[in-house]
Amino acid sequence: MEVSLKVIGIIRSPFKEKDRTPIQGVYSDTPGTAEVYPEYAEGLVDLEGFSHVYLIYYFDRAEGASLKQKPFLDGSKERGIFATRHFNRPNPIGLSIVGLKAVRGNVLDISSVDVLDGTPLLDIKPYVAEFDRREGVRCGWYDALDDHSARVHTPEGLRRP
Amino acid sequence: MEVSLKVIGIIRSPFKEKDRTPIQGVYSDTPGTAEVYPEYAEGLVDLEGFSHVYLIYYFDRAEGASLKQKPFLDGSKERGIFATRHFNRPNPIGLSIVGLKAVRGNVLDISSVDVLDGTPLLDIKPYVAEFDRREGVRCGWYDALDDHSARVHTPEGLRRP
Repeated sequence: MEVSLKVIGIIRSPFKEKDRTPIQGVYSDTPGTAEVYPEYAEGLVDLEGFSHVYLIYYFDRAEGASLKQKPFLDGSKERGIFATRHFNRPNPIGLSIVGLKAVRGNVLDISSVDVLDGTPLLDIKPYVAEFDRREGVRCGWYDALDDHSARVHTPEGLRRP
Repeated sequence: MEVSLKVIGIIRSPFKEKDRTPIQGVYSDTPGTAEVYPEYAEGLVDLEGFSHVYLIYYFDRAEGASLKQKPFLDGSKERGIFATRHFNRPNPIGLSIVGLKAVRGNVLDISSVDVLDGTPLLDIKPYVAEFDRREGVRCGWYDALDDHSARVHTPEGLRRP
């Protein structure tokens, strides 16, 4: 069974190449925009009070679905795709938490961007600390990395100081 | 423009009716399962080390897209749909963080469930504290609620003690 979703807008960033894009946004110092098409602008009302939002988007430059993949943060071993955030997933859906700096009509000014320029946008949701900041978290293979930090894997020029 | 996504499995819960389903999972004491179809089971390898996962799913019982909606936590005022987590979105994509208790073949035993029984599953991603626990978060209309807690809006019988 398949479901059909609408592209509701586009994400703009300075990133044109996958290997020059931050692996995760949390250490990225890079600004960008998330633009919804004008017919969806009314849905952005009240969003300016939130400091962070989830962007849900379509990895239009994924390289095909795979059930095992080497994570970008650990090239030593393949992992089950659902235990990674890699883009080569059965459904190429991306999820990023970005900072929200301003809402200008149908455009969000965002920070901490880790998304390729031109990526099709599917949804925006507010990040709510009470729902989304979970306690007592274990993170499997990621916790076991020697340098278990996405920071050291973020290219220096793209890294938050 | 539209994109087509595959249903990769199904979410099982005790919840058959929207108004008897927790509004958010964080205070839910309810177990359930997320089952991927057998052809995707290999993608679950390595997931058992993670205590929490994101489920991305299709709100198959949404009531039509709307750009303004009254949030379940605040019936006093309509808000822009992208400033809420309501299901009546331009794309009916749901996002829940659930606890992961066990992986049994193609089935995840999960906790803190806030999803209707039979909901089509689109993706599973690991929750990684370093990426996903953001600091210095402001939450707009949600922070401004008198009882700004999803806890008090979770039906008592479904609530974590």
